[in-house]
Amino acid sequence: MPMTMSQKILADHAGLESVKPGQLIEVELDAVLGNDITTPVAIKEFEKAGFDSVFDQEKINIVLDHFVPNKDIKAAQQSATCRKFANTYNIKNFFDVGKMGIEHALLPEQGIVTAGDCIIGADSHTCTYGALGAFSTGVGSTDMAAGMATGKAWFKVPSAIKVELSGTLPDRVSGKDVILDLIGKIGVDGALYQSLEFMGEGVKSLTMDDRLCICNMAIEAGAKNGIFPVDQVTFDYLEGRSQRAWKIYEADEDASYTQTIHIDLSTLEPTVAYPHLPENTHLAKEGKDIRIDQVVIGSCTNGRLEDMEAAYKILKGKQIKEGVRAIIIPATMEIYKECIKRGYTEAFIDAGCVVSTPTCGPCLGGYMGILAEKERCISTTNRNFVGRMGHTSSEVYLASPYTAAASALTGYICDPREVD
Amino acid sequence: MPMTMSQKILADHAGLESVKPGQLIEVELDAVLGNDITTPVAIKEFEKAGFDSVFDQEKINIVLDHFVPNKDIKAAQQSATCRKFANTYNIKNFFDVGKMGIEHALLPEQGIVTAGDCIIGADSHTCTYGALGAFSTGVGSTDMAAGMATGKAWFKVPSAIKVELSGTLPDRVSGKDVILDLIGKIGVDGALYQSLEFMGEGVKSLTMDDRLCICNMAIEAGAKNGIFPVDQVTFDYLEGRSQRAWKIYEADEDASYTQTIHIDLSTLEPTVAYPHLPENTHLAKEGKDIRIDQVVIGSCTNGRLEDMEAAYKILKGKQIKEGVRAIIIPATMEIYKECIKRGYTEAFIDAGCVVSTPTCGPCLGGYMGILAEKERCISTTNRNFVGRMGHTSSEVYLASPYTAAASALTGYICDPREVD
Repeated sequence: MPMTMSQKILADHAGLESVKPGQLIEVELDAVLGNDITTPVAIKEFEKAGFDSVFDQEKINIVLDHFVPNKDIKAAQQSATCRKFANTYNIKNFFDVGKMGIEHALLPEQGIVTAGDCIIGADSHTCTYGALGAFSTGVGSTDMAAGMATGKAWFKVPSAIKVELSGTLPDRVSGKDVILDLIGKIGVDGALYQSLEFMGEGVKSLTMDDRLCICNMAIEAGAKNGIFPVDQVTFDYLEGRSQRAWKIYEADEDASYTQTIHIDLSTLEPTVAYPHLPENTHLAKEGKDIRIDQVVIGSCTNGRLEDMEAAYKILKGKQIKEGVRAIIIPATMEIYKECIKRGYTEAFIDAGCVVSTPTCGPCLGGYMGILAEKERCISTTNRNFVGRMGHTSSEVYLASPYTAAASALTGYICDPREVD
Repeated sequence: MPMTMSQKILADHAGLESVKPGQLIEVELDAVLGNDITTPVAIKEFEKAGFDSVFDQEKINIVLDHFVPNKDIKAAQQSATCRKFANTYNIKNFFDVGKMGIEHALLPEQGIVTAGDCIIGADSHTCTYGALGAFSTGVGSTDMAAGMATGKAWFKVPSAIKVELSGTLPDRVSGKDVILDLIGKIGVDGALYQSLEFMGEGVKSLTMDDRLCICNMAIEAGAKNGIFPVDQVTFDYLEGRSQRAWKIYEADEDASYTQTIHIDLSTLEPTVAYPHLPENTHLAKEGKDIRIDQVVIGSCTNGRLEDMEAAYKILKGKQIKEGVRAIIIPATMEIYKECIKRGYTEAFIDAGCVVSTPTCGPCLGGYMGILAEKERCISTTNRNFVGRMGHTSSEVYLASPYTAAASALTGYICDPREVD
């Protein structure tokens, strides 16, 4: 039976010749992930179930990224719980303060996840690693606990939507605009429990950072996972970085999809998702009446080096609008350092921004830029639900780093091609 | 009647020929200060009292430094309250995110406070500016409110303790060790409602950053203020920086002091205040049995450029101890940027530290490094009270940047001259 790329990875990891949508399977995992919020819950489940060993010290990844350096006593206790567990079971990939980074930026960067992997993570944006040609999805903390102990997970095989890309992106239009456009078209449940499989000749023009951003937000359309074919861009990224051998899976020519969506990349424009759903998309150029109080550039969606470069291109030598706070958060220590080396950080500061240690921070209303009553933020993060970044009357507008940086200059939502 | 330096400043600002200890006087203020925590309370009092104007738009200073970028919704509302007030009354020195810095590092750095000033601030460490030869003290938010409206404040004239300094500090011994040694000698109420007036030939060898640190912690001995004579070091600091003309006050030769304390700087050693009082001092070299979980280098006490330089000297090319988290917080955006330019930031990161945006953060248990149950931190901050940095069972050890950085390398409290 012909299979999609996701189905092929799942079948292989289940030790089966083939699988079909809806089938329940048990797969072997290449990586299990948790963060400072979800891991303590998983540890509790792990202990409650009576487990006393982990399946592989090298395949479990615990990343402190949400609320570190500890934002309060609760966060401190959560971090301490993770630290103790990591020490007890000698977890190799435990990322504490100083080695930290946002999990979904850090794991690809460090070569911990690779093409062909089957990965679960107790964080909904675990779908990010599909950009490398892996099957990767978010699970609950109980599944994480079982995964840590057994190295296995149960799945219902997803059906798939084909997203056929053509053309190339115009200047100052990026992966974020692609995924916002797609979610705007199909809605936040448009891909419910399905794979979003990206393909077509447009793929090759998308950088790895574009692909990571696109797969990251697959969950915002309800998808089980997002995935890109493995090509030269993937090889260039993995070479000298991947800690393990990778494996290439390709969708069968005659694989079956529930629908096909065509996106001509050359027709896309800077796009913004208005409150309070990622599907509520508008063109950035239509946002002139929307004054903003804060700008956030960072997160597992858009805190990578290309995102920082995009912000730098817009902000260099400029001054952000009086009264606007701009918070830039490189996603990992490596990116943070590279921003310094390249002069981005100084340019951001000279423009009136602040640069934070790597953290999820404001994205989920954690810290480092929480919104007051009725304040508005344009943010490169992934969710704009009610109260997501602070007060329930505050508003979050999702956009690319280009669009967010440009809006910092004008003080209202604008098309990044309008500033220069 | 002969007067101390502090008394002379107070007399002049009260329009009196002379004052004596215990006398109640009303003085004209050169600067009124509040932060994101105390200013909203002052604004409430200001409005409750029916005030509708400020005495001088250029002499009120509102600095967002404790919990910004906003750490939670409450902090966001506090910042918003400050912002609205600053806009309404056109406050010139309003420091929002992006222009921010820890108030007591920022105001001297920006030349907003100067020698001979009479200053109140709704923050206990306002006594810092005595380093410039100003009378400066912390007040409650109600006094700040009245100060903003009238430009005046009531004081009971303090008596004074003479601190006679001789000799010069050994290598890797700094202002922090001087003030910890003094507090260890006289106790946390040893200077209650008195001025700590530093003088003697030892003064000239102390840098401005040493003096700012020493005066900053005068309050930890219960002092109303700490003050240094104006000398060449002061002039070198103020030249090209002070926004206003300064005035030099000198203590009368025959001024009266309640006591004289002699400190020979050359005999001092790196000193650490153990939990839970700043007076609980020990020599750093005696701390080998005290393992630490966290190191904080920053705050209004020790977040200045010389403090960063001290940390750099110790940490450059080294690796902090596995399991220790080290958080370095340059006190202002200017210092943050200078750390990047000088290569300090990269060296800190390479050593395994993280570098935060300027904030008071962990010092008062705000965010950016809160301690879990039973965790220990060696910190360059100013208070080590129970629960000050997190859980009530956690412990804070106060030390200089040299000592804190050295302890980050060893994982236990140590003398910075023992690492190399």
